[in-house]
Amino acid sequence: MDIDCLDTPLAVVDLDRLEANIARLQAYLDEHGIANRPHIKTHKIPAIAWMQVRRGAVGITCQKIGEAEVMADAGLNDIFLPYNILGEQKLDRLMNLARRVNLSVTADSEVVARGLSRAAQQAGLTLTVLVECDTGGQRCGVQSPAEAAALARRIADLPGLHFGGLMTYPTPDALDDYVRATRSRLRGLPLERVSGGGTACMWQAHTHAELTEHRAGMYVYGDRLTLRSGAVTLETCAFSVLTTVVSRPTPTRGILDAGSKCLSSDLFGLEGYGYICEYPQARIYALSEEHAHVDFSACERKPEIGERLTVIPNHCCAVSNLFNEVVGVRGKRVEVIWPVAARGMVR
Amino acid sequence: MDIDCLDTPLAVVDLDRLEANIARLQAYLDEHGIANRPHIKTHKIPAIAWMQVRRGAVGITCQKIGEAEVMADAGLNDIFLPYNILGEQKLDRLMNLARRVNLSVTADSEVVARGLSRAAQQAGLTLTVLVECDTGGQRCGVQSPAEAAALARRIADLPGLHFGGLMTYPTPDALDDYVRATRSRLRGLPLERVSGGGTACMWQAHTHAELTEHRAGMYVYGDRLTLRSGAVTLETCAFSVLTTVVSRPTPTRGILDAGSKCLSSDLFGLEGYGYICEYPQARIYALSEEHAHVDFSACERKPEIGERLTVIPNHCCAVSNLFNEVVGVRGKRVEVIWPVAARGMVR
Repeated sequence: MDIDCLDTPLAVVDLDRLEANIARLQAYLDEHGIANRPHIKTHKIPAIAWMQVRRGAVGITCQKIGEAEVMADAGLNDIFLPYNILGEQKLDRLMNLARRVNLSVTADSEVVARGLSRAAQQAGLTLTVLVECDTGGQRCGVQSPAEAAALARRIADLPGLHFGGLMTYPTPDALDDYVRATRSRLRGLPLERVSGGGTACMWQAHTHAELTEHRAGMYVYGDRLTLRSGAVTLETCAFSVLTTVVSRPTPTRGILDAGSKCLSSDLFGLEGYGYICEYPQARIYALSEEHAHVDFSACERKPEIGERLTVIPNHCCAVSNLFNEVVGVRGKRVEVIWPVAARGMVR
Repeated sequence: MDIDCLDTPLAVVDLDRLEANIARLQAYLDEHGIANRPHIKTHKIPAIAWMQVRRGAVGITCQKIGEAEVMADAGLNDIFLPYNILGEQKLDRLMNLARRVNLSVTADSEVVARGLSRAAQQAGLTLTVLVECDTGGQRCGVQSPAEAAALARRIADLPGLHFGGLMTYPTPDALDDYVRATRSRLRGLPLERVSGGGTACMWQAHTHAELTEHRAGMYVYGDRLTLRSGAVTLETCAFSVLTTVVSRPTPTRGILDAGSKCLSSDLFGLEGYGYICEYPQARIYALSEEHAHVDFSACERKPEIGERLTVIPNHCCAVSNLFNEVVGVRGKRVEVIWPVAARGMVR
């Protein structure tokens, strides 16, 4: 089937580029002896996770238990969940997951570590726990190497837990200093894994002597955010949203059939809500829920009503989470339609 | 079951408030003889659409054919689709819908009207088409009463089509002038419906003598956007996202387990990404995909890790579209869990 036979708006993945993106990062990390543990939050599709693992990834990263459950159901058997897991229900689900797959998680506080310890003891399991470190990302994480070492030693002491190393996001320039400052306080406790992450910084992974594993998500697809970072180019960007011009109300304004419920409102300081491949000078200056508002005034030729336009969105992770399926193509030929199986798995 | 038994993040609807919101707008529009045609894009749940219709709505409004198909499958039988429908596949689906329900659509160009006419003729149907008017919303729509009247007459002339009136969004202050200027050019063609919309302006509907029907969506739930407009109050807001504090990395920072994949990145010029009912002084200053970053520095008491917080999001329509289900409660008792049946129906 030709892509032209499918109606818009449509999330489209170029399979040749997807495979090349997966291979390229794997080769780079292999060359530098860094384990590849891609983040599936970008695609949320078991088939793509399997492509990553078959190429050489040591396992995958998930952000929520629900995502990990979907991936475990699809046979993925080495999962890192770098999230503070709290509460009886989530801990029960976590232990069920730990019985099925090689699971590791993170903690950034003693409260979280003690909860994990209680659950693991009750389940008769040993759970691997890394310490999440805030190295500038200002999200979760302990605030200093001293705190990291203290929590690491506490984890090592707690029954049912195994201290697995350090995790941070995104990998900071000064990772090595942070790791060494932590190690010096560990009193001989081994630092098995130092897990960094991010697509923007992925090609700098080799500059960190202490990094043992890298987690990248967006590298498989690419978007305007990763284009801005330089980690991806227009020629390697594998993800787009196919849209149709549904209105040309004025000589310069065009309206597309994809709004914030397709393209998301993520901006990250970018100008506009997407890049229109066929009209690089066009500007998606606003989104309604089901319409994109486009200014074509800078374009010599303007589109007709009914014309189909390819939009590279700002943030592929947010966009793929809005679609029920993505369409995999080679050139114009539709090869596969993947349900976004872990879409909406926020718990 | 008590709401405390359910894990977070959770989209929650207060059923007493939902029912009151539905009743309040219906009573107001009834009092002023304006037909109520609520927009289901907010909730995307057939059971809520049925509550609206049973209370007196003449029918519902959907934004995409996929939404309308879900609602028709649930027995809703009067649907307005104020969207330019283009292309063979969508027109086929539209005709299938027109065979099942009392359907009306819009057009803002002759291209769209001719497509609808061809499809209706082939299907042996007469389709009611309203002219979409851009009265300041700067989205789709003809640009003047003269253009509106010209397209109306064209629709009336095209085989298979019935001219149904005028549609705009949001209802402008000067609606009556626009409608009268259009009517004066219609050469006797009757203006059966004048359909306006919006929750922010809903309580002004009675000030427009020409308005025959109002489409509001967000009024059922409410959010920070409708709070800002004054159309809804904190006491009538029926929708929230229940979250858990998963990290307290610094004395003032707190991290919640709901990010942009729960709360959406919609800002609309608002400060922050949600209102925390238990900590009104707190500020959700950033979102990652699965984390909310909160500044609690202005709050006298700060939350503990594991504490559950109620967030009123910026934009309920975007948020309900991110969840697979919403939980309906009376007080703390869970009465129903509704799948968001039309979620992701973007085509």
